[in-house]
Amino acid sequence: MISFKNDYNNIGHPLVLEALKSASNNYFDGYGLDEESKEASSLIQKYIKKEVDIHFLIGGTSANKTVISHILKPYEAVIAVDSGHINVHETGAIEANGHKVLITKGVDGKILPEEIKRVVSAHGDEHMVKPKMVYISDSTEVGSVYTKSEISNLSKICKELDLYLYLDGARLGVALMSDDNDLTLNDIATYCDVFYIGGTKNGALFGEAVVISNKKLKESFRYSIKQNGGMLAKGFITGIMFKALFTNDLYFNLAKNANFMAANLTKGLEDLRIDFKCKFKTNQIFINLKEEIVEELKLNYSFEIWEKTITFTTIRLVTSWSTTQKMIENFLQDLKKTISKLK
Amino acid sequence: MISFKNDYNNIGHPLVLEALKSASNNYFDGYGLDEESKEASSLIQKYIKKEVDIHFLIGGTSANKTVISHILKPYEAVIAVDSGHINVHETGAIEANGHKVLITKGVDGKILPEEIKRVVSAHGDEHMVKPKMVYISDSTEVGSVYTKSEISNLSKICKELDLYLYLDGARLGVALMSDDNDLTLNDIATYCDVFYIGGTKNGALFGEAVVISNKKLKESFRYSIKQNGGMLAKGFITGIMFKALFTNDLYFNLAKNANFMAANLTKGLEDLRIDFKCKFKTNQIFINLKEEIVEELKLNYSFEIWEKTITFTTIRLVTSWSTTQKMIENFLQDLKKTISKLK
Amino acid sequence: MISFKNDYNNIGHPLVLEALKSASNNYFDGYGLDEESKEASSLIQKYIKKEVDIHFLIGGTSANKTVISHILKPYEAVIAVDSGHINVHETGAIEANGHKVLITKGVDGKILPEEIKRVVSAHGDEHMVKPKMVYISDSTEVGSVYTKSEISNLSKICKELDLYLYLDGARLGVALMSDDNDLTLNDIATYCDVFYIGGTKNGALFGEAVVISNKKLKESFRYSIKQNGGMLAKGFITGIMFKALFTNDLYFNLAKNANFMAANLTKGLEDLRIDFKCKFKTNQIFINLKEEIVEELKLNYSFEIWEKTITFTTIRLVTSWSTTQKMIENFLQDLKKTISKLK
Amino acid sequence: MISFKNDYNNIGHPLVLEALKSASNNYFDGYGLDEESKEASSLIQKYIKKEVDIHFLIGGTSANKTVISHILKPYEAVIAVDSGHINVHETGAIEANGHKVLITKGVDGKILPEEIKRVVSAHGDEHMVKPKMVYISDSTEVGSVYTKSEISNLSKICKELDLYLYLDGARLGVALMSDDNDLTLNDIATYCDVFYIGGTKNGALFGEAVVISNKKLKESFRYSIKQNGGMLAKGFITGIMFKALFTNDLYFNLAKNANFMAANLTKGLEDLRIDFKCKFKTNQIFINLKEEIVEELKLNYSFEIWEKTITFTTIRLVTSWSTTQKMIENFLQDLKKTISKLK
Repeated sequence: MISFKNDYNNIGHPLVLEALKSASNNYFDGYGLDEESKEASSLIQKYIKKEVDIHFLIGGTSANKTVISHILKPYEAVIAVDSGHINVHETGAIEANGHKVLITKGVDGKILPEEIKRVVSAHGDEHMVKPKMVYISDSTEVGSVYTKSEISNLSKICKELDLYLYLDGARLGVALMSDDNDLTLNDIATYCDVFYIGGTKNGALFGEAVVISNKKLKESFRYSIKQNGGMLAKGFITGIMFKALFTNDLYFNLAKNANFMAANLTKGLEDLRIDFKCKFKTNQIFINLKEEIVEELKLNYSFEIWEKTITFTTIRLVTSWSTTQKMIENFLQDLKKTISKLK
Repeated sequence: MISFKNDYNNIGHPLVLEALKSASNNYFDGYGLDEESKEASSLIQKYIKKEVDIHFLIGGTSANKTVISHILKPYEAVIAVDSGHINVHETGAIEANGHKVLITKGVDGKILPEEIKRVVSAHGDEHMVKPKMVYISDSTEVGSVYTKSEISNLSKICKELDLYLYLDGARLGVALMSDDNDLTLNDIATYCDVFYIGGTKNGALFGEAVVISNKKLKESFRYSIKQNGGMLAKGFITGIMFKALFTNDLYFNLAKNANFMAANLTKGLEDLRIDFKCKFKTNQIFINLKEEIVEELKLNYSFEIWEKTITFTTIRLVTSWSTTQKMIENFLQDLKKTISKLK
Repeated sequence: MISFKNDYNNIGHPLVLEALKSASNNYFDGYGLDEESKEASSLIQKYIKKEVDIHFLIGGTSANKTVISHILKPYEAVIAVDSGHINVHETGAIEANGHKVLITKGVDGKILPEEIKRVVSAHGDEHMVKPKMVYISDSTEVGSVYTKSEISNLSKICKELDLYLYLDGARLGVALMSDDNDLTLNDIATYCDVFYIGGTKNGALFGEAVVISNKKLKESFRYSIKQNGGMLAKGFITGIMFKALFTNDLYFNLAKNANFMAANLTKGLEDLRIDFKCKFKTNQIFINLKEEIVEELKLNYSFEIWEKTITFTTIRLVTSWSTTQKMIENFLQDLKKTISKLK
Repeated sequence: MISFKNDYNNIGHPLVLEALKSASNNYFDGYGLDEESKEASSLIQKYIKKEVDIHFLIGGTSANKTVISHILKPYEAVIAVDSGHINVHETGAIEANGHKVLITKGVDGKILPEEIKRVVSAHGDEHMVKPKMVYISDSTEVGSVYTKSEISNLSKICKELDLYLYLDGARLGVALMSDDNDLTLNDIATYCDVFYIGGTKNGALFGEAVVISNKKLKESFRYSIKQNGGMLAKGFITGIMFKALFTNDLYFNLAKNANFMAANLTKGLEDLRIDFKCKFKTNQIFINLKEEIVEELKLNYSFEIWEKTITFTTIRLVTSWSTTQKMIENFLQDLKKTISKLK
């Protein structure tokens, strides 16, 4: 069974595992106060000009929950597109911490400046929540990426409207390595108040690096991590993994492979004249197939059924650092065969 | 630097790491719905006669927060001894989910049946919270263990008073392997409504296995895990680790070593006529030393300063699966020398 | 200045005030456990065949917050139309208690059965909240009312989908007295699991009567009232007011007057060929006027500006038990004059 | 039946009711934005030199919940004596908003400066909550009052330790009118960051005036009121009542009567050589009686049973603005007779 199901379907990259193995005879301080975590932070800091605070958390929901809970007052709300992860796929984790998620329509998974303005102006008094943060993700839920001009514009609007800008980087690696990207880590730290660099979906066993670049938001963040259940006793493990990922550009190279494989797969699908639901240059591919074809493919490949209409089924194919050219070729051949057979 | 600081100061047991390495070419389903997690559950279920639900969480605070949030209604409260982890050392994580922790004095870190009764009878109407759960830990914060007769008695009282009994087993391994213990995993599942088996402090990289034995509490627990930010995308990693720990009794053997080393250390300290703050048969040792001696020892050994009085300093020495006879001997020799030197 | 601003713009009905005055030499038990509250409950119970629990709360947001918090588990959510009061106008009070409000488009402020089904089927696993309640209001935010067939159908669907049905009756009086209504209080108690009878907007100084008809939801409700800050020390005051309102059908007669005056006003506006934004048979009237006319009217009448477009301004005129025929006539005459003048 | 049960056992003072009656033909703006509330604020402001923000809330739990939720960050906690109202008698309302209440032993219901210091120094890192507020009440739960020197000292310590000082004034009237008091409203506004002036227990139908004197805490307080369900649609009613209470010193005179009657009752009880549990100069009297005597008295008087020991029963007698000399005399005579009879 070859897996295109997601980018968190195996243990982790060999170099990450190797780093853990190498450190297995050492003793470390607990709760993220160790030297490994400090060194990992330094390696990330190198990419960013302004001085930031970096904290290693255990997962995406935990990171989102902790960041938003840390920043907002009880009556303040966060704006997101309706497909945003915090809105749909976190079982109300943000609301469980007391905050409303204000939703807007997006385009290609991206939030629109005019929509932010509209939401803010529709919330004018104390009978409504007070919008105070914009949540975006890069790459987005559908695989698109923000451009430098888009992010700098969002940042400008947020400053005007007294909103914080928070970027969920669960898939930041493939975003930054995308052919459509013109942003650097430093740009992101410049334009966003907080963001996180996702490890889980790019080679780590788990772990996300929360980067706080707005000075005002740095204080007491470790209290929020602990209270939200996200402070690992063996925090040094996350430190060691991020150290490995930010040594010799491993993090970026893994993402590059994911995108490269996705590009090859896209090319092959185009050659087969497959219908794309949408097309972006990161590691998620959404295509529309007849249901019989999907059923046939499921015998040898795993992937997610995204949605079903009367005429076709949309499936999502995800590549990662571990996807190989051979896997792509097998899939394309089998797809071709299946199409011929079922014609 | 030899570490007696805690039992979560290194990566994890070699067999656990090896299990991860061996699985590193495989693909798995996400979010704990994989075969490894199922097999790990089966291995734990074997120790327990009644059918239980088992969920793998990422850490102790996360487990406590999730279990308590899952079970209690907003106006219901949990009773714990004042030294209880949920009361002191979790940054208000239980209160952050809306629940009051009602505290009582304990003896040797253990809760007293009469105190539970007193708290319940002092909370008689809707102007006060409604006690609905008793939280205990085994081993306790000071290293003591509950006996079968104590736990069965607590269970009886909880049933009488319509309270759930929840056991925090962050250090359940050393409790069950203690010379003072007469409980089995099956007993614990019989007497408690929910408990967790701690992995972090007994050889895993991280992870705790929450065991729900009360049928009424099983429903929708995965929603609570996710909402509380504790559902790991790569849940199979926790599964693999617990599979390793519950193969060939590794979990119990690791705890046995921790206790054995603690017993050796205790014996050596007794021979040196060291003053014990308290003495229990698990892996935590609390001794009182003159401050100058502590300062000298700190040069070569790491441990926690527990508290300071005018006359002496209490330090905590913790052993684990990775503690060796050599480490114990070195420490005892150096302590002996230091005492002579500073006399 | 004549007020059509809302239905809570004066102290309360003379008979309500008189009832308070008459009782002012008596002593009562506190926190709603008094005889007046019991008698008020009995008076309401007379309208309802099944045995219900009745609790008097202080206001609408408090009632909604308390009911929803009492019923839902942390990961459960409530479905409402996007214009629903709990979604827009309660400053995130529901989310502050930890629950997501799932929104759907409504028609005339009413929720659609097919939309409930759609929301439920779109929330299929533990990565999303679990829909567990439907929130409706009668009359709705725009003044429309539900019919018996609509409510019974909603009730049927809720039972099928394992959802509770909760009706916000802030304006239940005018709904039940509407010419479009065919529901009784008993019907509402039959079809809904919980609802409240609004006092604030129908003659009381404040206060809403929460009626719990689903037996499963009755337990410990007073704990939820107290915890949510809604238990009045002098609960007997609310009891006395509701006793007055449910004596000699006062509650219904007050609502009848509000509707009657609204009907007269509507008739007069129709004669003046005023453009209605929407038209329903309760006490809220939404009309579109040129901005200059609105400015002129504001000199002598108070009302709410609902929204502005480039071409016109929508204003809301609200009648109540205290609205008189004279006030209606004055308004219509002045409107007529203003229109002529500004033509 | 003569009532010494509490100070909120009747509708309200005639002048308060009269004020409501007089205003019953007027129309007002909603939600506390009316002229009556403004005038009531001005009347209170006159007693206080620095410019404060005043908000009228509906009750004590609501005020405490709203103030604390408004001020504290999620991981911050409030320190109170163990008998404090927020700790025992508010059904976990503070915890429901996410905050831990840290308790200390008090003396005569008052908090001790050294205890505040001890609690703060015991909470040193992010594994514990961060103490950020001290909660006191004046008069306290047992009827004692703070002196100017005590409050100014608490204020000093709070500033040193970066804590806010919050005073619950549910019974502030009797405190300020106590023979043991040397504080003014202005002193309280000077030394406390926030406090509230209780109306419910001193002549109003309901209502408490929250006074924010620390500038930093003023922003967006109305959002917190609304979100916590405490914003009354007819806020002008609370305004009218407080206007009445702060006209011609009514508020202070009512409290004076309560204290005067309590002093008379105390004198009479002393003459009868009754055993006092404690004795303070406000409107709450705690005496120890044999159970048979209590049973006999209960036939004609209502009061609260405070606690029972094997030897005696402690009852609480509360006086208020409505207590008369005649009521005191009747009680004393009947008590005397009962004692003789049962001797």
